Amino acid sequence: MTAYTEKQYVEEMIATRRKIHQTPEEGWTEFQTTWLVAERLRALGLKVLLGTQVINPKAVMGRDPKLVEAAIKRALAAGVPQSFIDETGGYTGAVAVLETGRPGPVTAFRSDMDCVLVTESDSPDHLPTACGFSSKRPGFMHACGHDGHTSVALEVCRWLVDHKDQLKGTIKVLFQPAEEGVRGAGAMAASGVVDDVDTLIGAHVGTFAKLGTIGLCESGFLASTKIDVHFHGRPSHAGADPEKGRSALMAACAAAMMMQGIPRSGEGTTRIAVGRLNAGEGRNVTPVHADMQLEVRGETGEINQYMVKNVENIVEGVKRAYEVEAEIVKAGEATTLPSCPEVLDLIESVAKTVPGVESIERFNKPSGSEDCTLLIERVVQHGGRGAYFLFGCNHHGHHRADFEIQDETSLPMAFNMFKGLALRLNGI
Amino acid sequence: MTAYTEKQYVEEMIATRRKIHQTPEEGWTEFQTTWLVAERLRALGLKVLLGTQVINPKAVMGRDPKLVEAAIKRALAAGVPQSFIDETGGYTGAVAVLETGRPGPVTAFRSDMDCVLVTESDSPDHLPTACGFSSKRPGFMHACGHDGHTSVALEVCRWLVDHKDQLKGTIKVLFQPAEEGVRGAGAMAASGVVDDVDTLIGAHVGTFAKLGTIGLCESGFLASTKIDVHFHGRPSHAGADPEKGRSALMAACAAAMMMQGIPRSGEGTTRIAVGRLNAGEGRNVTPVHADMQLEVRGETGEINQYMVKNVENIVEGVKRAYEVEAEIVKAGEATTLPSCPEVLDLIESVAKTVPGVESIERFNKPSGSEDCTLLIERVVQHGGRGAYFLFGCNHHGHHRADFEIQDETSLPMAFNMFKGLALRLNGI
Amino acid sequence: MTAYTEKQYVEEMIATRRKIHQTPEEGWTEFQTTWLVAERLRALGLKVLLGTQVINPKAVMGRDPKLVEAAIKRALAAGVPQSFIDETGGYTGAVAVLETGRPGPVTAFRSDMDCVLVTESDSPDHLPTACGFSSKRPGFMHACGHDGHTSVALEVCRWLVDHKDQLKGTIKVLFQPAEEGVRGAGAMAASGVVDDVDTLIGAHVGTFAKLGTIGLCESGFLASTKIDVHFHGRPSHAGADPEKGRSALMAACAAAMMMQGIPRSGEGTTRIAVGRLNAGEGRNVTPVHADMQLEVRGETGEINQYMVKNVENIVEGVKRAYEVEAEIVKAGEATTLPSCPEVLDLIESVAKTVPGVESIERFNKPSGSEDCTLLIERVVQHGGRGAYFLFGCNHHGHHRADFEIQDETSLPMAFNMFKGLALRLNGI
Amino acid sequence: MTAYTEKQYVEEMIATRRKIHQTPEEGWTEFQTTWLVAERLRALGLKVLLGTQVINPKAVMGRDPKLVEAAIKRALAAGVPQSFIDETGGYTGAVAVLETGRPGPVTAFRSDMDCVLVTESDSPDHLPTACGFSSKRPGFMHACGHDGHTSVALEVCRWLVDHKDQLKGTIKVLFQPAEEGVRGAGAMAASGVVDDVDTLIGAHVGTFAKLGTIGLCESGFLASTKIDVHFHGRPSHAGADPEKGRSALMAACAAAMMMQGIPRSGEGTTRIAVGRLNAGEGRNVTPVHADMQLEVRGETGEINQYMVKNVENIVEGVKRAYEVEAEIVKAGEATTLPSCPEVLDLIESVAKTVPGVESIERFNKPSGSEDCTLLIERVVQHGGRGAYFLFGCNHHGHHRADFEIQDETSLPMAFNMFKGLALRLNGI
Repeated sequence: MTAYTEKQYVEEMIATRRKIHQTPEEGWTEFQTTWLVAERLRALGLKVLLGTQVINPKAVMGRDPKLVEAAIKRALAAGVPQSFIDETGGYTGAVAVLETGRPGPVTAFRSDMDCVLVTESDSPDHLPTACGFSSKRPGFMHACGHDGHTSVALEVCRWLVDHKDQLKGTIKVLFQPAEEGVRGAGAMAASGVVDDVDTLIGAHVGTFAKLGTIGLCESGFLASTKIDVHFHGRPSHAGADPEKGRSALMAACAAAMMMQGIPRSGEGTTRIAVGRLNAGEGRNVTPVHADMQLEVRGETGEINQYMVKNVENIVEGVKRAYEVEAEIVKAGEATTLPSCPEVLDLIESVAKTVPGVESIERFNKPSGSEDCTLLIERVVQHGGRGAYFLFGCNHHGHHRADFEIQDETSLPMAFNMFKGLALRLNGI
Repeated sequence: MTAYTEKQYVEEMIATRRKIHQTPEEGWTEFQTTWLVAERLRALGLKVLLGTQVINPKAVMGRDPKLVEAAIKRALAAGVPQSFIDETGGYTGAVAVLETGRPGPVTAFRSDMDCVLVTESDSPDHLPTACGFSSKRPGFMHACGHDGHTSVALEVCRWLVDHKDQLKGTIKVLFQPAEEGVRGAGAMAASGVVDDVDTLIGAHVGTFAKLGTIGLCESGFLASTKIDVHFHGRPSHAGADPEKGRSALMAACAAAMMMQGIPRSGEGTTRIAVGRLNAGEGRNVTPVHADMQLEVRGETGEINQYMVKNVENIVEGVKRAYEVEAEIVKAGEATTLPSCPEVLDLIESVAKTVPGVESIERFNKPSGSEDCTLLIERVVQHGGRGAYFLFGCNHHGHHRADFEIQDETSLPMAFNMFKGLALRLNGI
Repeated sequence: MTAYTEKQYVEEMIATRRKIHQTPEEGWTEFQTTWLVAERLRALGLKVLLGTQVINPKAVMGRDPKLVEAAIKRALAAGVPQSFIDETGGYTGAVAVLETGRPGPVTAFRSDMDCVLVTESDSPDHLPTACGFSSKRPGFMHACGHDGHTSVALEVCRWLVDHKDQLKGTIKVLFQPAEEGVRGAGAMAASGVVDDVDTLIGAHVGTFAKLGTIGLCESGFLASTKIDVHFHGRPSHAGADPEKGRSALMAACAAAMMMQGIPRSGEGTTRIAVGRLNAGEGRNVTPVHADMQLEVRGETGEINQYMVKNVENIVEGVKRAYEVEAEIVKAGEATTLPSCPEVLDLIESVAKTVPGVESIERFNKPSGSEDCTLLIERVVQHGGRGAYFLFGCNHHGHHRADFEIQDETSLPMAFNMFKGLALRLNGI
Repeated sequence: MTAYTEKQYVEEMIATRRKIHQTPEEGWTEFQTTWLVAERLRALGLKVLLGTQVINPKAVMGRDPKLVEAAIKRALAAGVPQSFIDETGGYTGAVAVLETGRPGPVTAFRSDMDCVLVTESDSPDHLPTACGFSSKRPGFMHACGHDGHTSVALEVCRWLVDHKDQLKGTIKVLFQPAEEGVRGAGAMAASGVVDDVDTLIGAHVGTFAKLGTIGLCESGFLASTKIDVHFHGRPSHAGADPEKGRSALMAACAAAMMMQGIPRSGEGTTRIAVGRLNAGEGRNVTPVHADMQLEVRGETGEINQYMVKNVENIVEGVKRAYEVEAEIVKAGEATTLPSCPEVLDLIESVAKTVPGVESIERFNKPSGSEDCTLLIERVVQHGGRGAYFLFGCNHHGHHRADFEIQDETSLPMAFNMFKGLALRLNGI
């Protein structure tokens, strides 16, 4: 197998990204994407870990069995073999393992594969529309760039195989499921697949970084817990017997009011958002069901826990006050970014060598959450280290119908970053 | 045309009811039912009023154009001719008019045709299942008995035609759409179709009345207004920019808390129920949409208006407090039952003559609402009078999956009541 | 001792009322009033029960020891002997017992003695101002007419003694403390002092009845419970450490919102009112204390208990949600009026004989609460019967600074009512 | 006049502090303290500005005329001459002006004079108790150390007069009223008295700084607005006519719930605290009055304004929802600390020369608010500069009954700091 030319790597990577873009799959349902990944990796001769090798079912959060079931049917219909579905055990995600055969450190690169629930723009101005590779699934779209992450990771795998004789130690490339809602990394970490890793590096396209910028994430990720609350009341006729009912809707509204009012913390930034509430069956029936989706965040894990604890207290409180039942389900979790300055410095020094990188910036404004932090935390707990960087693109905003990346310029930058990192960390 | 025998009337009526039971249609979508009604009436040679002849579009409440559109497609697919759909102008409902040609009073009998959103029980104990006439539309069921009302009214029409030579004046038989949610009667009243009516009588199967009982409704219907509120906020990322969002969800929750707390009235019974709330787009996005369905009731129209006024104040208040938009839509309305003791006495005297009637009771406990009150109110406003009675059945509760009526015993009682009333009011 | 003339009775009664009017005492602090009552009764040679003979301390509600202590000091300063205070054991209230020595039924007449917290009008139009007998205690006023009740009851006692030889059986005249807030009757009932009573009759001046009217209370009293809730949180600096505090104020506000929203009952009328809330220590300190005064009412004792139960659930709920402590104290209680039609008929027949009575009306609109109902309930539970009537006056509204009664016309009517009742029930 | 010895300055300063400690006066009522200050300053021959010379009445916040009136009576009774009260025009506060007669910069030192509403500990362990100088006004206490600030400032004035021949330019020493609740500085700034100041320096005893520490405040003060809201509803009998009332209490509770839930800001730290709520007149009367005290804070003035704007929206919202009136009154205001690094550096270099200073620390944790920021801001707006430092003491917490300062060690350190700053800034 002759090594690809630089141009071949890039062309294949762009093509892969555009292919994946057309079949977006939401978290825990990425069976077609996982199949595409596994097929490619196996074609390269790489060892591929799947299912419970990379996902600890006990640590899985926010996975809806009904959606999984439907996704498997869809995958089978699209040509994914039943034998592969069996291999996954129903859990998406994959890890490629390159054993160089030479002693050396264990390095991990992490990507993610899921889409968001947005209907893609059909404007002719929108690049995927113009170039004919927009989403074929209405209501689903790779509007956060994970299609790009996956294709970069796949291309890095080809490059690693092509250049295996220049490398030592082990390199693992992670294809994590369900990053949206920070649901997947916890279960991947809990599988132990990164426990032997010395250095884990994750990356994201866009966000704060413009095209040409490599962003070094010093901090700024908020610890976060995603929580579902299912309230269950008792029906009654709202006109004849209001006193016989127990309104799950009113319990949920009272809880939302109290949650939004959880006191700020003098210890640092907090966040609370009740993002969804679906309650009630009919206008004139005391509502029996109310399903709430919320999230809390904190500048540290402790502050985040302070918020979680208050949410729990409030739910217990409204159960008592409204005589309803309520079940709290943890639907996602992320932590803050452990600080490993020497890995950031390494990334910086590699970035200086990558063509097209015009600026290198450090970011630390508290903002969103990212469950790669749980993988880095796991690595750090086992004596390793990690970091996270951004490779820029010019976009209109993530999770929007008109989200775009300049895949022909932006993705090669990421590809070159990982190549450089591999050589620096595992070069012979 | 030879007049039916008593047995023939009953058998046809039962068969009609069982036929309608299998194709339940929710309010404002009763195209198949209206078609069945109109065909039968025309076959009897009766004049049939349809569409805007019986429905004033300006007074229509709680009609969802998308559901109507889908229902029309369904009706066409089921064989309803396009020409009939055109006749309706998209508005369901019908009124049969029997002109005897002899001077005399104008009498109206009122039935309704819509189903509720319940999935019918498939238990073998459930009569419609056992006898093979249960709903063929999952999620929809004639669980309030309007299928019985329609079939009784149709059979009464045949009897009226058969006995036209014994009658004077005019008899109108109303097939009202959308009684559930008290949506349809207002628009039928506003059409003017009952403005010339001297006596209007409505009836309902079951509720408080057991099989063998005729219930005279002295009062007990609460005036009621059904209200939809559509809150519209502004999105933002809940982690990065919570201050930039305006949460429609929180505005709705605050409104629900305040609405539930509208002070009771010393003037009489009040009710408030927020029955449904669907809010939010994603867990980590400040919710842009919140749709609330609520209802208020009052022992009098004035008390009901006191509740409506407070709901309006609260919506205006949360618009201001949360900087959201909010639209209030009236989705249904009913009033209290105007008291016409002499019509109740008439019904009582007829009931005494009907075979199978074992007891006659008077009801006045405040409970539900019924928009037949708006038709009676309209008649009273134009100098007429009206009343409402119950014909009993043994049931497990209305709007339940296992709702049943004893159609072979219960419906004939209603049929005979209306026959008797026709003879008393319009007999020559 | 020669019996008074009619004129003497009336003059003394008016004088007594005007004297009491000048020294209003709030519930459980009526030491000067009780002393005045006891002195008069003893001068008449009547047996007087005091303290724990008429009040069961375990059943006392809404009695503030600090107010009692201050009242005792005030009474001592006003000349009430320490020995009398000792007799009361700190509990106001008295019962006069007339034993005729002849066998016969036990009858009880009930009056009350406490004032309300209103500052009396100093307008020259206001009769007590014009006649120089207005309240000498700013902030306190006999604005509900209990001064009149007490003076009528005292004068009835004189008449009973004067006419003892025309009477048989036993007559008890109750001077109940703390009717406002329905606090005193429960403890008087629990003392057992009315357990042997065959017929208990209470009365009130004014309310719905105009001057010249005797009102027969058929129903209309709502069962009611008065509740104090003391929330206790944890302080913290609102700027530096908001997360360390637990706000009693916010817990109370959330509780108020939820209480106001307790669902109406299909069983009958309910009421909820959070009447007072005092919370917080300083603007920038998380509030530690919040004291709430509320009341619930119900058309029946069961409906009232439904409201009480919900209040309790809500308080337990906010304790849990806000991690605060909260103590619920029952501060008052009344029930509905047990129906004893034959006693009402008796009252009606006596009213027909009383000079000045121009109309006799029956009242049953749900409205306020009255703890005489607890005394009647106790009597009924022990096999007796009871009733309550109004003797009218023309007033501007009870509990107002300009409340007035026409004592020269209204009180004699009550006096004559009780005379007549005594003769009918206990005449030889 | 011979200059004092170092020992004399210290002894007098301690004595002054202990004298002031015994007569604590809350904000805007410091008439006895202002009188003490003015007498001393005039005895030193200093020009003293009073009343509207140092306070702009239009900018006064949180001043209760009733408390002022009572304080003036108290001051007169304590021997303060009426002529002095007249000089103040009812506004406390003073500024001493030392004109050296030599050209040079204008420097201002700022102290404050008001106490807090705490009852001082009577524990024998408590130094003021042990040494017999504890507060003689129960419920009022110099528990924040402003007595120390005033006595240091007075002693600095004596030292300035004693060393006038070593100084150039002008030195103003500010005795600000009403720092608690950040009420006084705004009005002093608005008077223009610091408009010509080149350098303004304020200081506080304790807080984060231990005894022996000089703390340089780099940032950490939150912009803050203190707000009173007076809700006004409509009374009604809670049992008979709940629908006729408009509950100011419920409006306030709803407002509190919504205020506590104002979304956090991605721009920086926010705070909200509803610290006090007094509502309602009687348990069974719909509450007419509700008085709320709250405060908001923000990491910047803009963020604070975001909070203020939301509070205003919420108040407008509940006015509409509950049909109540509501008045918003600004009761206090502070801003963030403008950064003037060279002044901090100057303070640091002086601190290094002061005996007893063991450590010099820089503070910037967001925490409380201080209205000295408004004076510094005013100076900066006029082209000057300013800074704020802490001089440590070992205390149990400010605003506590057992707050203590080690006046014999701590105050001399502040005295020497100001001496050194005067020499550095205005030394010839």
